Amino acid sequence: MDTLTFTFEPGGRPLYEQLYRRIAAEIASGRLKAGERLPSKRALGAHLQISVNTVDGAYRMLADEGYLDSRPRSGFFVLALPRTLAAPTPRPAAAATPPSPDAACRYDLRTGLVDPDTFQPDLWLKLARKVMPRMGAHLAAGDPQGERVLREGLTRHLREFRALDASPDQMVVGAGMEYLLGLLAKLTGDGAVYALEDPGYPKLRTVLANSGVAHRFVGLDEAGMRPDRLRASGADVAYVTPTHQYPMGITMPVGRRLELVAWAEERRGRYIVEDDYDSEFRYAGRPVPSMTGLTRSEKVVYIGTMSRSLAPSTRCAYMVLPPALLAAFRQRFGTYACTVSMLEQHLLAAFIGDGLLVRHLNRARTLYRRRRERLLDALGGAFGDRLRIHGANVGLHLLATLAGGPGEKAMKARAAEKGVRLAGVTDFAASDAARLPRNTVVIGYAALHDAEIAPVVRRLAAAWATA
Amino acid sequence: MDTLTFTFEPGGRPLYEQLYRRIAAEIASGRLKAGERLPSKRALGAHLQISVNTVDGAYRMLADEGYLDSRPRSGFFVLALPRTLAAPTPRPAAAATPPSPDAACRYDLRTGLVDPDTFQPDLWLKLARKVMPRMGAHLAAGDPQGERVLREGLTRHLREFRALDASPDQMVVGAGMEYLLGLLAKLTGDGAVYALEDPGYPKLRTVLANSGVAHRFVGLDEAGMRPDRLRASGADVAYVTPTHQYPMGITMPVGRRLELVAWAEERRGRYIVEDDYDSEFRYAGRPVPSMTGLTRSEKVVYIGTMSRSLAPSTRCAYMVLPPALLAAFRQRFGTYACTVSMLEQHLLAAFIGDGLLVRHLNRARTLYRRRRERLLDALGGAFGDRLRIHGANVGLHLLATLAGGPGEKAMKARAAEKGVRLAGVTDFAASDAARLPRNTVVIGYAALHDAEIAPVVRRLAAAWATA
Repeated sequence: MDTLTFTFEPGGRPLYEQLYRRIAAEIASGRLKAGERLPSKRALGAHLQISVNTVDGAYRMLADEGYLDSRPRSGFFVLALPRTLAAPTPRPAAAATPPSPDAACRYDLRTGLVDPDTFQPDLWLKLARKVMPRMGAHLAAGDPQGERVLREGLTRHLREFRALDASPDQMVVGAGMEYLLGLLAKLTGDGAVYALEDPGYPKLRTVLANSGVAHRFVGLDEAGMRPDRLRASGADVAYVTPTHQYPMGITMPVGRRLELVAWAEERRGRYIVEDDYDSEFRYAGRPVPSMTGLTRSEKVVYIGTMSRSLAPSTRCAYMVLPPALLAAFRQRFGTYACTVSMLEQHLLAAFIGDGLLVRHLNRARTLYRRRRERLLDALGGAFGDRLRIHGANVGLHLLATLAGGPGEKAMKARAAEKGVRLAGVTDFAASDAARLPRNTVVIGYAALHDAEIAPVVRRLAAAWATA
Repeated sequence: MDTLTFTFEPGGRPLYEQLYRRIAAEIASGRLKAGERLPSKRALGAHLQISVNTVDGAYRMLADEGYLDSRPRSGFFVLALPRTLAAPTPRPAAAATPPSPDAACRYDLRTGLVDPDTFQPDLWLKLARKVMPRMGAHLAAGDPQGERVLREGLTRHLREFRALDASPDQMVVGAGMEYLLGLLAKLTGDGAVYALEDPGYPKLRTVLANSGVAHRFVGLDEAGMRPDRLRASGADVAYVTPTHQYPMGITMPVGRRLELVAWAEERRGRYIVEDDYDSEFRYAGRPVPSMTGLTRSEKVVYIGTMSRSLAPSTRCAYMVLPPALLAAFRQRFGTYACTVSMLEQHLLAAFIGDGLLVRHLNRARTLYRRRRERLLDALGGAFGDRLRIHGANVGLHLLATLAGGPGEKAMKARAAEKGVRLAGVTDFAASDAARLPRNTVVIGYAALHDAEIAPVVRRLAAAWATA
């Protein structure tokens, strides 16, 4: 009974718990050995001057948890733990995520950002006040395709602004484009091969590779993905960004859209995925109808996202599935919870339903239009004809080609030396097949404050002066 | 020029847009044919009595979008669309999700629900007021593993309540357990085979199948997953619910925990996944240390979720990865956005950081403890010894076995006739290997209002009276 002689901490945990901990520790350390019989409850109670009930409580917990074996009319025996653990060594600390190498850059002209000023906390708080009291009725995981009220709002928005007539029943809401593409890759059939634009959005390759889906790269011409190359690739699903090709900024003409859809119509299992990521921001010309809206083909999947229209922090994207893929979704993912939280879904539904999304888009479009014009003016003033701008009609980035420049790499490096971080077109290219313009950088201007335009352009002018 | 003779709608869209639409429609319908030359801007302007600029605007948009070819000094020509579209037929309406067959049941005793009264809208609104003004600084997609402030809060919580010492750097936050298991299935190596508890959570099979990962079912004994069967299965990864086996309610003793971890330690590529889904609600005995905390083995992955501790609507789960899997995560998913929205993450971080999660859990535990006791009393009063209760120490469901009952199917059917929906243990069984108690149903009581307990038990007593 020596090992069990100890003093209780007064005013600490309940006595039975202190005793439980002590005995468990003795067993774990090996001081109490397998097969050993513990003192009777009465004896230990008397020894430690505690009640029999307290000892009973501790013994029973130890038995519950597999430390002790309770044998009727014999008492409690230490059980053999299959593997006595050495004194636990602390886990090696996990390495923190390495900081980005460009963290030092003063100005960030990467794509994929939005202007912090477009976020209106008061408006969202107002929506939260409206929505929160109702959330007690929505504590379950909800509809696998997303809340109906949100899908109704989104389809109404698509009808009014993208001439896309979809039913809420065809729509699937999910936590971002990456998540939805991961789902889609499982719906388009085993062994389906995806065609990706080259140059294009690098993350698509990662998502497809992570989904175990093969892909081929297909080069572009001035109208977007080349149908001849697509055909030659042997791919089944063509993933395109027709409104504003990422990153080249090409708006795919109607003819090319129809040509691609015709390719998909030729064979069973073929699809077009239309990623309409930043269609909300169009500054010149009028909106081209979406491929989905234009053709009403059952071969086109439409994917939209709140990442640009609202902010990447939102984590809400949506896709419109043709009947065959919708059936596959319901069969394979019909028991899943929608990955967007119910609060977020109801906030967004109220945002859209109250007409605030349209107002937000108008406000943001005006802001970005003005910013784009100022940036174009400033670049024109600094570089004149030496810098050709393209792909600037839609979206939140543009391309700039420096005539007789020192090469894209040198342009990026010199800009970085001056504190300006930007990407070059080759950063988006996957293969040599991508015929890229030389001396061309990609400028994301969404998060560039108006006051920063002049200094950024000055720095770029200094960086590229000797070119 | 006849086809282009039409009257403008006064006060409608801008004239250039009306003209654009009209010409596009004529081309789409085939009335204007490929190769046809459009009238000069001046001529059409004079004909329609509009300005040359208006015609110019319409022609240029049509050229931009691939309807027209602009030939310098020759004019505008209709381009060949690769495939003339017939008048678009409306898409067939997608079938709405079929309503659940049990929708008519008055009382829902399924598992996976929480009590609506545990949701405190005022508290969440207060948090929203605190967090929302800061969200403008968090519009980007954020850390792939989840916001650091949230991971710090969650690891602190695990340290204090689950004796689990993890670093925030090891933690990955994601939109629900299904999502995280989908990720994990890609991290544990190609060809890894998962062992699932049988009976167990049916959704796990679906998620693994959707991830292209093979699984084997492993039966249970009174301590949980059987190590001999696990060994015989040839599986690499054992997925277990040791705190409160789903659905059998078994708390895995320490010895079995260590035995399973020892199995994993034997070979490279083996892992234990510890799903701790409802550990927060323990009513009898004291908490058994988590396998991860107990062994500090680098072979254990811990998965926790907010679905039970808060609500399924939250869509936030988290896992603690050992170093090898963390490295794999960063390599394969390091460019992904975290699937939980930034707003949700910051709300949860404030909720945990302000000590509100602990308070919420205490409140909910008290509520569920009282409900469980009332339910047990009522069942005892109605059935006496005929109904044996088990698996009720932890969590939000219990098992009830009716001595000499008419069989599980009949018990469920008769309960449904009386308006009570509940599951039987075989609903969770995957194979004949699962040795299941007969006449046993699973009763989820989390969303059962106190006032409903008496009527529900009365209905069950009536349903099972003739047994």
